[in-house]
Amino acid sequence: MKVLGVLGSPHKTGGSASLLLAALKGAEFVGAKTELVSVYDGEITPCKGCIQDEEPDCKFPCVFEDYGKELLLKIREADGLIFSTPIYWFAPSGKLKLLIDRMTCLENMVAFGEPSYVEGKVFGAIAVGADAGGPWVGGYLITTLTCMGAIIPPWGIAYSHKGDDAIHDDKALLDAINVGLLVAKMIKVIKGEKEDLTFLDDKKLMQKIREEILKELERS
Amino acid sequence: MKVLGVLGSPHKTGGSASLLLAALKGAEFVGAKTELVSVYDGEITPCKGCIQDEEPDCKFPCVFEDYGKELLLKIREADGLIFSTPIYWFAPSGKLKLLIDRMTCLENMVAFGEPSYVEGKVFGAIAVGADAGGPWVGGYLITTLTCMGAIIPPWGIAYSHKGDDAIHDDKALLDAINVGLLVAKMIKVIKGEKEDLTFLDDKKLMQKIREEILKELERS
Amino acid sequence: MKVLGVLGSPHKTGGSASLLLAALKGAEFVGAKTELVSVYDGEITPCKGCIQDEEPDCKFPCVFEDYGKELLLKIREADGLIFSTPIYWFAPSGKLKLLIDRMTCLENMVAFGEPSYVEGKVFGAIAVGADAGGPWVGGYLITTLTCMGAIIPPWGIAYSHKGDDAIHDDKALLDAINVGLLVAKMIKVIKGEKEDLTFLDDKKLMQKIREEILKELERS
Amino acid sequence: MKVLGVLGSPHKTGGSASLLLAALKGAEFVGAKTELVSVYDGEITPCKGCIQDEEPDCKFPCVFEDYGKELLLKIREADGLIFSTPIYWFAPSGKLKLLIDRMTCLENMVAFGEPSYVEGKVFGAIAVGADAGGPWVGGYLITTLTCMGAIIPPWGIAYSHKGDDAIHDDKALLDAINVGLLVAKMIKVIKGEKEDLTFLDDKKLMQKIREEILKELERS
Repeated sequence: MKVLGVLGSPHKTGGSASLLLAALKGAEFVGAKTELVSVYDGEITPCKGCIQDEEPDCKFPCVFEDYGKELLLKIREADGLIFSTPIYWFAPSGKLKLLIDRMTCLENMVAFGEPSYVEGKVFGAIAVGADAGGPWVGGYLITTLTCMGAIIPPWGIAYSHKGDDAIHDDKALLDAINVGLLVAKMIKVIKGEKEDLTFLDDKKLMQKIREEILKELERS
Repeated sequence: MKVLGVLGSPHKTGGSASLLLAALKGAEFVGAKTELVSVYDGEITPCKGCIQDEEPDCKFPCVFEDYGKELLLKIREADGLIFSTPIYWFAPSGKLKLLIDRMTCLENMVAFGEPSYVEGKVFGAIAVGADAGGPWVGGYLITTLTCMGAIIPPWGIAYSHKGDDAIHDDKALLDAINVGLLVAKMIKVIKGEKEDLTFLDDKKLMQKIREEILKELERS
Repeated sequence: MKVLGVLGSPHKTGGSASLLLAALKGAEFVGAKTELVSVYDGEITPCKGCIQDEEPDCKFPCVFEDYGKELLLKIREADGLIFSTPIYWFAPSGKLKLLIDRMTCLENMVAFGEPSYVEGKVFGAIAVGADAGGPWVGGYLITTLTCMGAIIPPWGIAYSHKGDDAIHDDKALLDAINVGLLVAKMIKVIKGEKEDLTFLDDKKLMQKIREEILKELERS
Repeated sequence: MKVLGVLGSPHKTGGSASLLLAALKGAEFVGAKTELVSVYDGEITPCKGCIQDEEPDCKFPCVFEDYGKELLLKIREADGLIFSTPIYWFAPSGKLKLLIDRMTCLENMVAFGEPSYVEGKVFGAIAVGADAGGPWVGGYLITTLTCMGAIIPPWGIAYSHKGDDAIHDDKALLDAINVGLLVAKMIKVIKGEKEDLTFLDDKKLMQKIREEILKELERS
């Protein structure tokens, strides 16, 4: 069971990064193998919109040979996906949007007689800003992903408006842990395992995860 | 396995009604018991926002004794929910929004030491208009429901911009059938049954369901 | 120059009410005559969607004889409109949405060879909640109103996530005052007067308006 | 009076391009000088989010020396802005979003004791896709721009779901022409000229503009 965390922020130790770490720890807590990648760690060529062409190239893994392709390959392999983005003007960062646009090639497999390559993956979203916009960004992300065929677990969105201080936003931190936890549990349920899909209101676990993350961020 | 269809339209034979019927037939196709209710069939008192009070009354099944309460009771009983709304200014109809506001009492059980009464239910959304706005309305509805604890199955949104003619909008009709089908299958998966959660691209089934609905609408 | 404030909240002294009062004081500061009405002060019959009928009744002032009609008449008379709503599930209150649906008859005058009766009015939006969702609600409102023909002045949205305490949310209060101020100034500009359409960062005025509102709320 | 059209599409002759041309011709019709630029014509470095830093570099014209800076300079010079984007997953293209993120430096002048450099500009939005999503994208864009201080004229949004065929979508074409026309007229009104800010329902003008655009697209 693999859960991929995709960070949409230029800041590796900021609010969206720390809540993504929390979500991944939540997923690990129920047995998931996790990996964190950042859209800022390489070049993502903007989608050229070839899906409109008569003979479209829009087929996994896309024609562009770049870092974006590496991410698409990782997305293809994952059972669960968690996107965590800073809120830039009530929306995901432009760089994360570049990746989302490129994910069209995963969904567009339906045009080639195959199911969408996102179908059946479990998806959760995290959005962190210094002002507002969390529900809009989270809502945007889950809307896009369900339209690619992903499953949204209960409580599939977490958000904070505390910026870099999101790790100290109790509600948001607990929500983010649950995003990871419920993405992982939902994967298990789909694979036939028994799991209750309920929000885990565990303040002790939250505190433990917060301390781990603060230590990790300090080191980096 | 009960799936409740909630119609947000004043028109019992219009586009959002016919696609809701299609979704419920999709759910029945995989064994669900279904029921269709309309928000227009009785009084729904507007939420008085008592959740802000010091000692809030905001507890299931709400203080108001009206048709809204009947619907809340039905929602509480259902394993799956499908909301189908006309698109009024890029949003659900005001009357459906009254019900959504009242659903706060289901979610707010968390304030009384219980889980949200929406948690773990499976939810799908349908939106039909004569111009545009489908993804916004559908996205709005799934965002709200995931934040109440519902699960969104793959392809959890269907929409058409053909108005009363939505039943003849092939893509939308097939999507609506799949909303019902996948809501029902997801319920089964959660209950431990084996089901593949894939989009069913079955044009024959679609045609059969369309004819059934056209006959039913004619009769009514 | 008339500016109408429409309150979407059941609470006459809550956050959305107090920020609406602030906006109206902003409008008065530059010479507007203002009035505040609440959607909760009477019955608003849900739109019956007759715009889809072959011979639609959807014509100002709507066929329903109710409080909703009174509000539509007031909207028709106003040069400027400010809607202030509590955030109920990332959207305006259901009751305010009932009014918005009914406003279709103002816009639909285009189907009768007249301009939209909202065209050229100046519109601003305020949204107040206890958690999040402000930009989504504000954005929804201005989108709907521009599609009815309204003008949005600079800084046309204000929001707070402090609930009943919004009056003490400095940024939100200043934004709300400016919504009113800029709605009124924009009306003047359209009428041919000279006004600079800039954000007024006047902390003293803000403090004065806050104190006035607190006194008024105490009395009520 | 300068109106800048910003194209968010990789296709110079597609639906969003042709409706943008129509809008600019609408603006020229009332005397504006227009220019069309495409975000795809050069490198736009992703925003590094330095606004969160203790001593932020986030000041016009941004620290990056790239094509994005050229566009920011042009935006700074313009009296009116029209963004036209293909609908990629219910949102502007990632490349256009990169530019929007970078526009933070224009708005963030408020942190340096100046007004936002977007304040008072007049803004209109166009969105074109092959399926749906127009109002969401248009609504997103005007929300962002009003929060930077821009003015939205009446009927500030146009959209089509006819993809490359948008130029033959009568309603969308007329709406797009009016976006340009009303952006330009609003600029005039702000400058003290008399103009009526009404939708121009002129089918002949529409046909003339369509033919001009079809000829221009053929040549290119």
